[in-house]
Amino acid sequence: MSDERLTFRSKRIVQADSPAIDASGNSLWTGQYYNEGVDNDYFDKLKEECGVFGVYGHSEASALSFYGLHALQHRGEESAGICTSDGKNFYYHRDMGLVKEVFDNERIKYLQGPAAIGHVRYSTSGASKLQNAQPLVFKYKGGDLAIATNGNIVNAPEIRAELEELGSIFQTTSDTEVVIHLIARSKQKNINDAVKEALQRIVGGFAFLILVNDRLFVAQDAHGLRPLAIGRLDGAYVFASETCAFETIGATYERDLRPGELLIIDEKGMTEDRFAPLQQRSLCAMEFIYFSRPDSDIDEINLHSARKRMGRQLAMEAFVDADIVTGVPDSSISAAIGFAEQTGIPYELGMIKNRYTGRTFIQPSQELRERGVKMKLSAVRKVVEGKRVVMIDDSIVRGTTSLRIVNMLREAGAKEVHVRISSPPYKNPCFYGIDTPDRKDLIAHERTVEEIRIAINADSLHFLTKEGLLEAIGRTPDEFNRGMCTACFDNNYPTALSEEMEAVGCGTC
Amino acid sequence: MSDERLTFRSKRIVQADSPAIDASGNSLWTGQYYNEGVDNDYFDKLKEECGVFGVYGHSEASALSFYGLHALQHRGEESAGICTSDGKNFYYHRDMGLVKEVFDNERIKYLQGPAAIGHVRYSTSGASKLQNAQPLVFKYKGGDLAIATNGNIVNAPEIRAELEELGSIFQTTSDTEVVIHLIARSKQKNINDAVKEALQRIVGGFAFLILVNDRLFVAQDAHGLRPLAIGRLDGAYVFASETCAFETIGATYERDLRPGELLIIDEKGMTEDRFAPLQQRSLCAMEFIYFSRPDSDIDEINLHSARKRMGRQLAMEAFVDADIVTGVPDSSISAAIGFAEQTGIPYELGMIKNRYTGRTFIQPSQELRERGVKMKLSAVRKVVEGKRVVMIDDSIVRGTTSLRIVNMLREAGAKEVHVRISSPPYKNPCFYGIDTPDRKDLIAHERTVEEIRIAINADSLHFLTKEGLLEAIGRTPDEFNRGMCTACFDNNYPTALSEEMEAVGCGTC
Amino acid sequence: MSDERLTFRSKRIVQADSPAIDASGNSLWTGQYYNEGVDNDYFDKLKEECGVFGVYGHSEASALSFYGLHALQHRGEESAGICTSDGKNFYYHRDMGLVKEVFDNERIKYLQGPAAIGHVRYSTSGASKLQNAQPLVFKYKGGDLAIATNGNIVNAPEIRAELEELGSIFQTTSDTEVVIHLIARSKQKNINDAVKEALQRIVGGFAFLILVNDRLFVAQDAHGLRPLAIGRLDGAYVFASETCAFETIGATYERDLRPGELLIIDEKGMTEDRFAPLQQRSLCAMEFIYFSRPDSDIDEINLHSARKRMGRQLAMEAFVDADIVTGVPDSSISAAIGFAEQTGIPYELGMIKNRYTGRTFIQPSQELRERGVKMKLSAVRKVVEGKRVVMIDDSIVRGTTSLRIVNMLREAGAKEVHVRISSPPYKNPCFYGIDTPDRKDLIAHERTVEEIRIAINADSLHFLTKEGLLEAIGRTPDEFNRGMCTACFDNNYPTALSEEMEAVGCGTC
Amino acid sequence: MSDERLTFRSKRIVQADSPAIDASGNSLWTGQYYNEGVDNDYFDKLKEECGVFGVYGHSEASALSFYGLHALQHRGEESAGICTSDGKNFYYHRDMGLVKEVFDNERIKYLQGPAAIGHVRYSTSGASKLQNAQPLVFKYKGGDLAIATNGNIVNAPEIRAELEELGSIFQTTSDTEVVIHLIARSKQKNINDAVKEALQRIVGGFAFLILVNDRLFVAQDAHGLRPLAIGRLDGAYVFASETCAFETIGATYERDLRPGELLIIDEKGMTEDRFAPLQQRSLCAMEFIYFSRPDSDIDEINLHSARKRMGRQLAMEAFVDADIVTGVPDSSISAAIGFAEQTGIPYELGMIKNRYTGRTFIQPSQELRERGVKMKLSAVRKVVEGKRVVMIDDSIVRGTTSLRIVNMLREAGAKEVHVRISSPPYKNPCFYGIDTPDRKDLIAHERTVEEIRIAINADSLHFLTKEGLLEAIGRTPDEFNRGMCTACFDNNYPTALSEEMEAVGCGTC
Repeated sequence: MSDERLTFRSKRIVQADSPAIDASGNSLWTGQYYNEGVDNDYFDKLKEECGVFGVYGHSEASALSFYGLHALQHRGEESAGICTSDGKNFYYHRDMGLVKEVFDNERIKYLQGPAAIGHVRYSTSGASKLQNAQPLVFKYKGGDLAIATNGNIVNAPEIRAELEELGSIFQTTSDTEVVIHLIARSKQKNINDAVKEALQRIVGGFAFLILVNDRLFVAQDAHGLRPLAIGRLDGAYVFASETCAFETIGATYERDLRPGELLIIDEKGMTEDRFAPLQQRSLCAMEFIYFSRPDSDIDEINLHSARKRMGRQLAMEAFVDADIVTGVPDSSISAAIGFAEQTGIPYELGMIKNRYTGRTFIQPSQELRERGVKMKLSAVRKVVEGKRVVMIDDSIVRGTTSLRIVNMLREAGAKEVHVRISSPPYKNPCFYGIDTPDRKDLIAHERTVEEIRIAINADSLHFLTKEGLLEAIGRTPDEFNRGMCTACFDNNYPTALSEEMEAVGCGTC
Repeated sequence: MSDERLTFRSKRIVQADSPAIDASGNSLWTGQYYNEGVDNDYFDKLKEECGVFGVYGHSEASALSFYGLHALQHRGEESAGICTSDGKNFYYHRDMGLVKEVFDNERIKYLQGPAAIGHVRYSTSGASKLQNAQPLVFKYKGGDLAIATNGNIVNAPEIRAELEELGSIFQTTSDTEVVIHLIARSKQKNINDAVKEALQRIVGGFAFLILVNDRLFVAQDAHGLRPLAIGRLDGAYVFASETCAFETIGATYERDLRPGELLIIDEKGMTEDRFAPLQQRSLCAMEFIYFSRPDSDIDEINLHSARKRMGRQLAMEAFVDADIVTGVPDSSISAAIGFAEQTGIPYELGMIKNRYTGRTFIQPSQELRERGVKMKLSAVRKVVEGKRVVMIDDSIVRGTTSLRIVNMLREAGAKEVHVRISSPPYKNPCFYGIDTPDRKDLIAHERTVEEIRIAINADSLHFLTKEGLLEAIGRTPDEFNRGMCTACFDNNYPTALSEEMEAVGCGTC
Repeated sequence: MSDERLTFRSKRIVQADSPAIDASGNSLWTGQYYNEGVDNDYFDKLKEECGVFGVYGHSEASALSFYGLHALQHRGEESAGICTSDGKNFYYHRDMGLVKEVFDNERIKYLQGPAAIGHVRYSTSGASKLQNAQPLVFKYKGGDLAIATNGNIVNAPEIRAELEELGSIFQTTSDTEVVIHLIARSKQKNINDAVKEALQRIVGGFAFLILVNDRLFVAQDAHGLRPLAIGRLDGAYVFASETCAFETIGATYERDLRPGELLIIDEKGMTEDRFAPLQQRSLCAMEFIYFSRPDSDIDEINLHSARKRMGRQLAMEAFVDADIVTGVPDSSISAAIGFAEQTGIPYELGMIKNRYTGRTFIQPSQELRERGVKMKLSAVRKVVEGKRVVMIDDSIVRGTTSLRIVNMLREAGAKEVHVRISSPPYKNPCFYGIDTPDRKDLIAHERTVEEIRIAINADSLHFLTKEGLLEAIGRTPDEFNRGMCTACFDNNYPTALSEEMEAVGCGTC
Repeated sequence: MSDERLTFRSKRIVQADSPAIDASGNSLWTGQYYNEGVDNDYFDKLKEECGVFGVYGHSEASALSFYGLHALQHRGEESAGICTSDGKNFYYHRDMGLVKEVFDNERIKYLQGPAAIGHVRYSTSGASKLQNAQPLVFKYKGGDLAIATNGNIVNAPEIRAELEELGSIFQTTSDTEVVIHLIARSKQKNINDAVKEALQRIVGGFAFLILVNDRLFVAQDAHGLRPLAIGRLDGAYVFASETCAFETIGATYERDLRPGELLIIDEKGMTEDRFAPLQQRSLCAMEFIYFSRPDSDIDEINLHSARKRMGRQLAMEAFVDADIVTGVPDSSISAAIGFAEQTGIPYELGMIKNRYTGRTFIQPSQELRERGVKMKLSAVRKVVEGKRVVMIDDSIVRGTTSLRIVNMLREAGAKEVHVRISSPPYKNPCFYGIDTPDRKDLIAHERTVEEIRIAINADSLHFLTKEGLLEAIGRTPDEFNRGMCTACFDNNYPTALSEEMEAVGCGTC
């Protein structure tokens, strides 16, 4: 034994599994993530954790998945993957990076077969690992099995502990792996029954695409928390987290999945089944406010239009006289235009986001760090100088970004900065697939609007009311299957939660 | 001699000079460029060929150049390079790719010294070669010499032929190399005189940054065709094609260079000199209309504001009753908002551009090609369906893009599509650094507005008048040093041209 | 459902899991493997499937593993991996490629902690998959667990089927994964007992390094088929498939593991235990003949010296008068020198192997293919021209290589070519970790020596006798713990085999 | 001007020109070169600076060049390049790295046309720059021009200064660029005359392949210092620094070039001309002793055989009684076998070189550095332990390597180490293309054999006499066209030298 004492205590697996994974912990793009960290701290936005896309019955399933995932890229920039089946084999590839970086012509050609499921994934803090990139692919007694998910399983830790006790071994830290184990361990003879049984065990908000040999299972959680839409293309079925993926590939939108629904697609066609009784839907409100692309529709409602209405509603609720209206790019532009149209105050380009900004950046020196931040977002001095500015943003999470943007506008000469937020104060963490900070880090948690206004250095601050939000979106909780989850605003979670969850932050995708 | 007859005739050097350069001619990103070709054909925009950035007297000259070039990335996405001097050595690096791809922390650290010049470059057709990437660096009798340019030398071919006759050898196909030869062959004892003599030989539109040992020369062509601004930061001098680079690094804008001006910066400070008499400026109008970033200012005029005024002016000149106004992203958003404000017709997100789109794409099959195009730009069905749409664009080059966008809007359900262009018809090629197609390929060349309207399938079509453009910009030709080059609209070129030029298209950067 | 009929039948997972894995099936180095295929066909050698290396108790455990694995590179060129433990975390990295390609300074630094296990791996046909690269790392109820193995588990398919029936899911096609499942499912309270229980279930030839949290298990199969040596360095324990790794890192060799031995190393030191009763050793004879590096020792016997003795023995058994002796590089040089010394016929460089040859090669055209072969091995015309040549090789597998080499020597002008093989005819496949072709493809299977001589176009051919081989090696089966497995020569397998095995070829590592 | 004083004084261009070139000065393989530096310091061998290969008149000219350069890889491992001509265009590619790394199928296919010249290059200290990688390609008044060289131009600095004074600019630091300038500036009407005129200006030791449009020029310096052989393949002409390249591609060797010879190959065939009168040849002796591959022939003499004879001669000149003979791999194996055969002392594998060693290595810590060295070369303990060892090496340059090897053998247990060198003491630098240290760093300069013996810690030391060397090689200076340059041993340089050269070390390739 060498001199140094080996002090082995707790354990955690840290994996570096591909050329994309490197020495400083998780990814060779460390500098990037570092800066991304700066950026995310700066921009301080909530992060959707995943997007899923599926095809069944098309000769170019992998290429369609590529285009579809590319359209869903905003839902997850960290890793991408596709698994296809030609009936004989599963083919798959996944890696850290954007869809366009992970795949090329050769790889798409390699991914053969008419059925495909794909995935894009955001990192959750400290876990940007290739091993967690989806689709996850396994062999079990029944053959091959792949899964792509969006969302979070609230009772995954309990199930995992139970499975480990029975001797299961895990290769990932992803909650999703428990679903596979549940299917593999099912005593059901029939794969359809085994999948249904597994789904009945889990609680949470999720959209699943599960490929088993020659069969595709598509499921949504019992409350319909996460979006998942069905489309058709040349006779094939396509599935996507957002309808913008359908527009990209030329598919036609059919409908959204319903709470507790389980679709089974095989050679004979699609069977509509369910694993839980139909109940009131609780679709995530943040999909309307921030996550989904403005050109996507959810249940027939276009999101750009909904956001413009939020801006108009906000103007009605909290008018302020000013010289210009500006929105924090890109997500708040629609609301800002709505605000401007409602008030007659001109919409101006008060800030600009560098469109070449990505993960890859040189690390600025301490001296240049403050400047570096401007690489991503900068004020347009000539536009804001001497003006009373209404700055529209979709939400405030920690408040750090808002403070910096307000200060940036002031440094560029803005005389007044009035902040208007197109959603209610964000007070509670999400446990259904959104990466939120701990409750204590949410600026709206236990702070009044006036305290927040002071913290972000604004001349005035208003949030859209929950009622105004629902009005603007145009769907209300009492309409059946049109309800929304607004737990982040009102602490009203649609599912049971673990005690731990109530205390801390969120899980994984 | 083997069987096959060796038929050697004309010659052209085709180089593959780095891992980034490959077998199919120019770049390993062939698939990308192929699609980029599709894209450029689709989007059919003029391409600015270069952006330059320089620093003299700052301890972080290379890092500042990185941030500055990043802000100028839109002026050239193909290659990037920086050359620095620490007095003892020149250090340089250049490669195919975006600024953030070409440089990393280590490379920036390697680029030592307080003086730097940098460059971003667009490809001109068939010449996306690393060897032409700038800065170009040479050794001559006086020491080391590097050059970064934006623009085009009209009489470069004549000078090159002359130099070759004298025994000069060339490693690039870049016009810029002739400037170096002229300096190296000058009989002038003094480097300042040698540079001045070389500049007096050349005709064209250009902005030059020339690093000679411990000295920086900054020059603008005799007509002031290409933009170049001077800024200050912590006592150091900075130079950039656009002021947005100054905002990014926190520098303050001082002024624009004047026609024929030559600045010489050395240890003792900056000397203002000139190589040609001051004359009326002829600044490129397309910088105002399309090329420069909306947050840049030229001669105190902010470009977003100028473009909004173009939109308002266009509304006054060519009003049409409609349900929504939409702009082709990203360059026409400002004008579209101006048009909407002037008319009261709501501005809507009728189209969306995928922000992850870049050069890297898998090659769609013939069947998917049409769909692939939507990866870059797609209509928002819910927004345009059943609507009378005013579609604002900044210019029409070949017309192919306009046709596709109009058709895309119609396919998405637009009832009427009224096209409004925020500049006059583009009829003549540019010879000063803009990559324009041959005159015959310009749709406005020898076609009436009505003929163009039919070609692009619009319900109505109007172009902004030249007078309206100048009014909107807020600078007119008769104001001294505020004149503009509008040769692309009115065939009124400020410099002499070669006969060949009048016949065909443009040269290189 | 689209037109094409989805015909889903059997299934096999084909994974493309990293940038190193590509479209044509398994690896981006396809061209290479293709040519490697050519090469392997040409050189037609048996392939050792793995090398393992372990450290316990050294501050530079990962760097030592790097150097150790590099010394063992010849045992597996396809993938490399290291997993370390610092007590709190496991750190690991593995990828396709050579040790020096897979690791760099940063990655080695990232792999923290005083305990490490490492692995190099050859591809077995059609399975060069990253997912199978070792060490394999898992989480189970007891914490973290990693394994690196050399060898093969004869009853893995049965155990795997049994585990799948119990609901286990598998991520790899590696036999090794069953060991982990057995440990995880063990009812034993104590990890030591769980490992022992798992080892008792499996049959085969293997050397295992198993890292469980803060503990290292080192085991050898009950017959001692695969080599594994123990060394000491600065008080730390090191383990390696061959002693050459110890010389490289400056460690001192202690002893080889014994059949059925299980070492358990933890903070308190090393415990010598066993999971099976001590029995006669059956060490792989091919390790002496071909696999191990000539500078390695097994049980105190240096392999270069042993091979020289094989050459001398061969000369005594099958002398032939000739002008020169030459050996097929690199593995037969020692035997050739022994033959030359015994006979007095000069040893000459009749063939040369290009030392830059690796996996990466351009694919020769059909016309150039025959020439391409010479890139790897070529005859030295001036040396062999007009000469009677004795060509020494260590073994003949399919015979294709021998034919080509004989013909190459003849084309270079050799008057006679007498082939002498320093081992007995290779007639039976190995089931203990060597990649052998099917029995029917072994040229010595069901052919007489004279038939083989004709097939390889030699003037004469002799194989070393089994008795001569054992004599030369200097260890005989009747010496306890010094026995050898010579099943490939005499069909005398030390373990039970499955019926399937008797019929076909080999399994996986 | 910022605070820091800009102190600009002398200048040197340091280029980082490709992804292969990085921040710490020259190459992204810095760590490698660092270790390579360690290695080269350790192995302390002279370095051949280049290998050239040419084809004229073959449909697979680029593929043949690939295979040919691969065979010449030992002559230059740093960069590789090929330029082809199809009569219409030149096509070229070059990069840092081995031939197999720089080229792939696509690149080779891209390099079209029946004429090709190729180059491999070693780094000279501090100048491993892509810009100096050959072939160099230029445009001049007569068209396209490419050059590949092996050797050194003694009067290049003077010519360069003269050319710069006339206004020439240089992109490389390579001497070779002056030849191009001389050709481009020639007043001769005819390209043949221009090339001849240029060659007449330069003094040194060189082999040139110059491609001008559709014509290939092949030249050797007036003294025939560097080797260059002519071969034929399928009617085409091939040229190579060594004949091993011909064996690889299946070409037949015709003859070596003669001193001052100039071959001109065009569509009509090959013209034999000369630019200098025929004189006594002075072929580099080190090509026989060390540089060329043992399977190459020079003027009909095979180098393995010549080296074996050197070993025999050495045994006759300096016999010593011992137990084993061993050679430093790889270059001294032939001589060691000769020594063993002559003396009857058995040849043994006393040392082994790791065949996976390349440029890519992790940087060992200070503690591991000494161990790291063993990654490349290690003693075989079992072989040398307790033995009296004769260690054969081909030369001693600085002596550092010899000392370490002797010590390594002693540490492994050698009782006595007797060093025998198969060449005379190396006392003088080479100015004809070999990278030698300064005279003062050559251990044999101003030291007696006894002093060297002490310095390298040997029990005895002997060098082969010059007479013995010439005898062994089998060619003597008085045979016309068979003379050799032995300046490194006897200070008898065949060409004029600059004063500077006499003082210091060598130039560049």
